[in-house]
Amino acid sequence: MARTLQLRRNDAGIAAASGILAQRFGARFQTGRSLREQHGHTTTWIDNQPPDAVILPRTTQEVQDIVRICADHRTPIIPFGTGTSLEGHVNAPLGGICLDFSEMDKVLEVHAEDMDCRVQPGVTRKALNEHLRATGLFFPIDPGADASLGGMAATRASGTNAVRYGTMKDAVLGLRAVLPSGEVMTTARRARKTSAGYDLTRLLVGSEGTLGLLTELTLKLHGIPEAMSSAVCSFPTVEAACNAVIATLQLGLPVARMELMDAASVAAVNAYSKLSLPETPLLLLEFHGSHDSVAEQARVFGEIAADNASTAFDWTADAEARNRLWQARHDAYWASLQIRPGAQAISTDVCVPISHLADCVTRAQAKAEDMGLLAPVLGHAGDGNFHMLLLVDRSDPRECATSEDFVAWLAELAISYDGTCTGEHGIGQGKMGYLEAELGGEALSVMAAVKRAVDPLNIFNPGKIVDPAR
Amino acid sequence: MARTLQLRRNDAGIAAASGILAQRFGARFQTGRSLREQHGHTTTWIDNQPPDAVILPRTTQEVQDIVRICADHRTPIIPFGTGTSLEGHVNAPLGGICLDFSEMDKVLEVHAEDMDCRVQPGVTRKALNEHLRATGLFFPIDPGADASLGGMAATRASGTNAVRYGTMKDAVLGLRAVLPSGEVMTTARRARKTSAGYDLTRLLVGSEGTLGLLTELTLKLHGIPEAMSSAVCSFPTVEAACNAVIATLQLGLPVARMELMDAASVAAVNAYSKLSLPETPLLLLEFHGSHDSVAEQARVFGEIAADNASTAFDWTADAEARNRLWQARHDAYWASLQIRPGAQAISTDVCVPISHLADCVTRAQAKAEDMGLLAPVLGHAGDGNFHMLLLVDRSDPRECATSEDFVAWLAELAISYDGTCTGEHGIGQGKMGYLEAELGGEALSVMAAVKRAVDPLNIFNPGKIVDPAR
Repeated sequence: MARTLQLRRNDAGIAAASGILAQRFGARFQTGRSLREQHGHTTTWIDNQPPDAVILPRTTQEVQDIVRICADHRTPIIPFGTGTSLEGHVNAPLGGICLDFSEMDKVLEVHAEDMDCRVQPGVTRKALNEHLRATGLFFPIDPGADASLGGMAATRASGTNAVRYGTMKDAVLGLRAVLPSGEVMTTARRARKTSAGYDLTRLLVGSEGTLGLLTELTLKLHGIPEAMSSAVCSFPTVEAACNAVIATLQLGLPVARMELMDAASVAAVNAYSKLSLPETPLLLLEFHGSHDSVAEQARVFGEIAADNASTAFDWTADAEARNRLWQARHDAYWASLQIRPGAQAISTDVCVPISHLADCVTRAQAKAEDMGLLAPVLGHAGDGNFHMLLLVDRSDPRECATSEDFVAWLAELAISYDGTCTGEHGIGQGKMGYLEAELGGEALSVMAAVKRAVDPLNIFNPGKIVDPAR
Repeated sequence: MARTLQLRRNDAGIAAASGILAQRFGARFQTGRSLREQHGHTTTWIDNQPPDAVILPRTTQEVQDIVRICADHRTPIIPFGTGTSLEGHVNAPLGGICLDFSEMDKVLEVHAEDMDCRVQPGVTRKALNEHLRATGLFFPIDPGADASLGGMAATRASGTNAVRYGTMKDAVLGLRAVLPSGEVMTTARRARKTSAGYDLTRLLVGSEGTLGLLTELTLKLHGIPEAMSSAVCSFPTVEAACNAVIATLQLGLPVARMELMDAASVAAVNAYSKLSLPETPLLLLEFHGSHDSVAEQARVFGEIAADNASTAFDWTADAEARNRLWQARHDAYWASLQIRPGAQAISTDVCVPISHLADCVTRAQAKAEDMGLLAPVLGHAGDGNFHMLLLVDRSDPRECATSEDFVAWLAELAISYDGTCTGEHGIGQGKMGYLEAELGGEALSVMAAVKRAVDPLNIFNPGKIVDPAR
């Protein structure tokens, strides 16, 4: 058979591969409708496109075997972690086999002195931290959901403490990945830094399963800080809050988290969690370090906030009080849903240079109101990254269309501010339409060329990120 | 003409391209022998392979024009910054045109609020910091040499303060690059983080001019710390020093620099700079932060050092005293040369997981002695990265061969410790032989496939990193 790009659904091939895999994997090969639909699940208006089957491999060798069988029969393979991606990443537009990594969930090695570990892709971030408890080390990246580490690497996830600890691009030291050929590639060893050739680790991080299936990850860990303190601080405007963020970053204060909630988010949380926070824009911070250092950091931030017209400031190093403060942030998703019972919350994701954050948020709030949308703002302000939770009645097609228009408008606005249409959720299917506006045609052509070079049959998660036939 | 890989010198094509370029660029196209040899210069035993001509472009458009002319005539292009690379990166094994970026040396934009800037590739790191002086910001990556930022990005350089500020992989937000097709690609905009498709920025950082010619770089900046303090600390053994490093990292002490010198390096510096440091392994540290914080960091490190058998400890926050302490480190290269007048110092570069650093250094010292080589050790201990300065009489072929054997032995040793054959110098020509041992054949096949996909004619810096025909 010619090694040409597979761009259409291949019924005969999928049936043949499924037959072989069913025989080989028995109960670990499943085709029940609800399971398949759950494996195509994404919380957006993107239609569910379930795979033809779900398979649960246990070893790298099994993944290789599955890939070879699927390659022989031109059958797409879609990797699946915990299903918490947001842009149709796990949909199967050309059908195919969903490779669910939940049975590859072992922490293989912890090197405490080197502050790294080797894990299988199905280990979740919480399971890893549970495993690490006795070592004094932790894995910091926190996208909110208890996502699998393989999925987090594949989507270049980050979250609340990226401002200090970086994103998955920074957390991954090396990967083992099964290639579309069925061969296994090692991208790097365990050195903290390397200049050894092309950065294949970073090429795979964020490639959303389109270039390789991650079967082992070597991850950087950090020492659990001796102390933490938190601060909560209200501002009259989003702009004032953002100015405080800029001043904090310029001073080099090593904040671990610096989250923005707009007045609507705060109101939602007050109602949901019986709090009485001032219903104005709010920054929520966390500081990590020695006891002296976290106290000093909170004090210095308090001064910066006061210089930027803050109207209320509170900080604490007490664990229980800290948890109470952060409850507001953790509850924001559920609290927002209560604003409009029955609605779904669809999370947008853009990221702009921090000098444009206040403008971008303010214009987005006005536009949403204009379009009749309820959309509280939650931001990782230290990175210039923010989400709006669109509260949408998905049974109303007009409302879905309006929301989709808003998301497109916001992506273009972020790009016009020299930002990106996605800071941490990824491209998947949902953001494919904005990538050329953001980067230009040459970048897409190079992505397509790389995709064709690594996956000449287009069997790894087809229909995501970039069209290899462009 | 078929678009096939050019793997041999193409005299006719080079002559044709040279003719066109000479006419177009006049005095900015040069063919003098000594200039050409200087542009193939590398401080190793790798033979000088000068390009056929050196050209000095001033704009991205000119770079595009040169690339198109060279592509039409199958003529290699070798990018050149300041010529401080160390592994034959700027050699021209198939001849061709050296593209010297020294006239593209403008700082294009500084966004102080966003703490980033846009520069041309010929700007050196010192020139950038000079330019930034009034802003309160600085660019931290410091490989020692006053290298060009384009060259630093191309080789994924780092240096003494990578332990805190990362490497060029972390410092680059986005790139503009001229591709082998002559088109210009933008890899990312200015957002602090992005999940928008394949990480083309990181694909180009470290690609050593083999995939794209960098014509603009967007770089992260940092606030100049309010205060700095330094500490110098002697240990009875390399192992004790490394244990102090491990404890420091595990505690999360945010050291900015953490350098290791072995007894031979200290002795060389004592002789050269009239110092009287104890001639035992030594750690030199720098702390950045607030006045209180840098004092606390030095105090805490002092305790860690005492717990690890340190024999002498000194710290200061006074600028002049700090500079005196760091003089030892800065003089180490010149001091080492004085150990053996007339010799050249050839710098090796390996990086291992920190738990293996002491073993690796100790075995390397013993092996060098065994082989009759003088080779003081300088290490970026916080990263597990170290160099040995081989003091070699390059006129003695036997000694060159012995040194080369030693470098091979050390690269293999580092790999056996799950490390890398190069932490920061890059592959170039010199380290090509170790890449497969380090990463395995699949990684090299993917690198070759990416190279062929992006540069199907093999005209961008051929003969470096990986053989595209493998």
